[in-house]
Amino acid sequence: MRLGAFLYPSGHHIAAWRHPDSQADAGINFQHYVRLAQAAEAAKFDLVFLADGVGTRGDNLDFLSRTAHSYIAQFEPITLLSALAAVTSRIGFVATASTSFNEPYHVARKFASLDHISGGRAGWNLVTSSSEHEAKNFNRDTHFDHAERYGRADEFATVVRALWDSWEDDAFLRDKNSGRFFDPDKRHVLDHKGRFFQVKGPLNVARSPQGHPVLVQAGSSEAGRTLAARTAEVIFTAQQTLQDATGFYADVKGRLAVNGRHPDDLKIMPGVFPIVGRTRAEAQEKFEELQSLIDPVVGLALVSGLTGGIDLSGYPLDGPIPELPETNASKSRQALTIELARRENLTIRQLYLRVAGARGHWQLVGTGQDIADQLEERFVNHGADGYNVMPPTLPGGLTDFIELVLPELRRRGLFRTEYEGQTLRENLGLARPVNRYQTERQAVLEN
Amino acid sequence: MRLGAFLYPSGHHIAAWRHPDSQADAGINFQHYVRLAQAAEAAKFDLVFLADGVGTRGDNLDFLSRTAHSYIAQFEPITLLSALAAVTSRIGFVATASTSFNEPYHVARKFASLDHISGGRAGWNLVTSSSEHEAKNFNRDTHFDHAERYGRADEFATVVRALWDSWEDDAFLRDKNSGRFFDPDKRHVLDHKGRFFQVKGPLNVARSPQGHPVLVQAGSSEAGRTLAARTAEVIFTAQQTLQDATGFYADVKGRLAVNGRHPDDLKIMPGVFPIVGRTRAEAQEKFEELQSLIDPVVGLALVSGLTGGIDLSGYPLDGPIPELPETNASKSRQALTIELARRENLTIRQLYLRVAGARGHWQLVGTGQDIADQLEERFVNHGADGYNVMPPTLPGGLTDFIELVLPELRRRGLFRTEYEGQTLRENLGLARPVNRYQTERQAVLEN
Repeated sequence: MRLGAFLYPSGHHIAAWRHPDSQADAGINFQHYVRLAQAAEAAKFDLVFLADGVGTRGDNLDFLSRTAHSYIAQFEPITLLSALAAVTSRIGFVATASTSFNEPYHVARKFASLDHISGGRAGWNLVTSSSEHEAKNFNRDTHFDHAERYGRADEFATVVRALWDSWEDDAFLRDKNSGRFFDPDKRHVLDHKGRFFQVKGPLNVARSPQGHPVLVQAGSSEAGRTLAARTAEVIFTAQQTLQDATGFYADVKGRLAVNGRHPDDLKIMPGVFPIVGRTRAEAQEKFEELQSLIDPVVGLALVSGLTGGIDLSGYPLDGPIPELPETNASKSRQALTIELARRENLTIRQLYLRVAGARGHWQLVGTGQDIADQLEERFVNHGADGYNVMPPTLPGGLTDFIELVLPELRRRGLFRTEYEGQTLRENLGLARPVNRYQTERQAVLEN
Repeated sequence: MRLGAFLYPSGHHIAAWRHPDSQADAGINFQHYVRLAQAAEAAKFDLVFLADGVGTRGDNLDFLSRTAHSYIAQFEPITLLSALAAVTSRIGFVATASTSFNEPYHVARKFASLDHISGGRAGWNLVTSSSEHEAKNFNRDTHFDHAERYGRADEFATVVRALWDSWEDDAFLRDKNSGRFFDPDKRHVLDHKGRFFQVKGPLNVARSPQGHPVLVQAGSSEAGRTLAARTAEVIFTAQQTLQDATGFYADVKGRLAVNGRHPDDLKIMPGVFPIVGRTRAEAQEKFEELQSLIDPVVGLALVSGLTGGIDLSGYPLDGPIPELPETNASKSRQALTIELARRENLTIRQLYLRVAGARGHWQLVGTGQDIADQLEERFVNHGADGYNVMPPTLPGGLTDFIELVLPELRRRGLFRTEYEGQTLRENLGLARPVNRYQTERQAVLEN
């Protein structure tokens, strides 16, 4: 079982920052992240995962000023993970970077650099941006529509992966006697001219320890699944039920063969939001304490965000969810949220209390044994290759998971006691990609 | 006297990587940089400085494959400095980032993040890109012309500095009881709509320890000086003679008052390329050893680069420099190189041997006392506020400077024995900028 530690400044619960044990200034507290990364490494997590947004998501100040969420004020992920790489030695680091408002050359370069700095522990979570608040920071009035976002993402990923092959692994001779620094035959110019990008290359970073930093994706929509089946090596996803999880797992793994890939080439790691107690009563109490800290203004705005920007504040809190029009927002999250409300016949208030905590992710409340049972069930039934753990509060929620859930997973032989490899790829069980030009060269030699 | 340690992978001499004592794999060797940054910090340097290019500069493989220069394969500066920030505590970090192929929101965010991670030790060296090899990695066939580059740079700097003021210093309340995370009156939306950029804001990073990371510039052209007089806090420049240095110093400092600035608000730190020996003979021997490692192919290509891409390989190596046409390249470097050749009546070979080492910068060969004499002379005669030290080889050239020149500067009371402050600004003697919105608020209160 693979495990990621998804660090969100004060924790994933929307009211986490108000909890007495949480670090309220987490977004500017570097030592907080050092402690978390080192604790996750001591516990043998595969990776630390950071989400991202290139702008605050929203301009409802009544809501925003009551949360530490919505990317209001926190470290930029690549700078943060580079710094954390210097004070750790084995854990992987996955940063989110959007393909919507970036250039492939910059992204390829920064992740290759992080892979060198960390000795092969970098991963890129490829996302598309669906918030107009982000678009407005990048010379646009609106964001790209869904199809254009995915077309751009697909070409972006193609360019980045090709740039990572600019140099063959043994291109750099560094021969002081002959004066040859590199072998010109092992340097490759991309000369990409596509619909969205024109990138000559080569990348000005040597091929990195992992060949390619690990490519992570999150989308669950049809376009997202298609893109993932072609390029992703880890999927971070959100399914509420075992049935949905196994369905998603079978569907995505089934798409790999068409792309010449093996089911093991892609690891599916759903998010899990665990509230752990020494007893069930203690876990429930922790959960209720957090829920009680949610301001209704915050809860409503969050539902609005998850349903595509629709304002529900005009509707009665204890009434049903109204019929909602189709929007341009992230289709997967919108669908998941509305499905949940319909399935369980929730009121608006019940819905916000449900999604405010885990924000649409799989929420588990119980003892270490209860939570291990659930994680094991989904894992052995081909619903997950592992999980991205979303602690409700930080640092407390991560400590709880390490102290109460991990020993139970280890007792069952489900989780490692020592890292298997030196790189993130080795620990995740992913092969190191052979450079495409080396493959070409070998093909020529064999013919 | 302020001192920067300008780290170039294996050293600034063009043939540094071939020297027996240099780290030839420096561009992918993180521990090499850790040792250098920690040595510079122990020696109380103000800052570590990193240059940058977003692409290899050139496609002359015969040349490129013989050098470790021209940004062929090395760490991306911001990721590298973030990582170094985690293993140091007092030294500043200045990374170069181009305004030509970046977005102000990304740049503002990364440097604010680095300033938080490092506890107030970040600086941004603002440059414009003048290489078409870089342009071709960013959807263009040619680079921007000189006027457009500077117009874009000026607007870019304006937007970045305004984004750094998005939040007042005391905007974040983080009041767990009331549930107020920030004070909405202390959050400011920029809503910039200019010729080159449209950026709404606010930045999603809290105002950083230094208020604004230190703004560094390098241009010496008329447009560069005008921009620097308006925005720069440190200028990294290149003058060969005391007369040129004092002329530049007086000119740039004289432009500050018009912009409502004091001469102390801008520190002028020319580059210096020191080859230090325990005796003059030893220094000369070190220099000649390095010069002997320069391949003529490399020397010629370097002169070509410094003179705006003009190919001199058709001319006799031991003949004079021919008349050269005006080009679109960086005017300051081109002018400096040609001036040098004219002034000293150099042949092409002599020129490449002269500029190949220091690449147009001020080259000093001698004992610690000789070099301290030169640095002192320029410093006391108002030609410099300090220097950006460019070690010819690394790590050896930095060690030599620390062991042989610094004790001499300290004996004369010219350089610190302990850091004065906690932040880069405090050590450089630069004031922390007051947030523009706080200034506005105070003005309203006073009327």
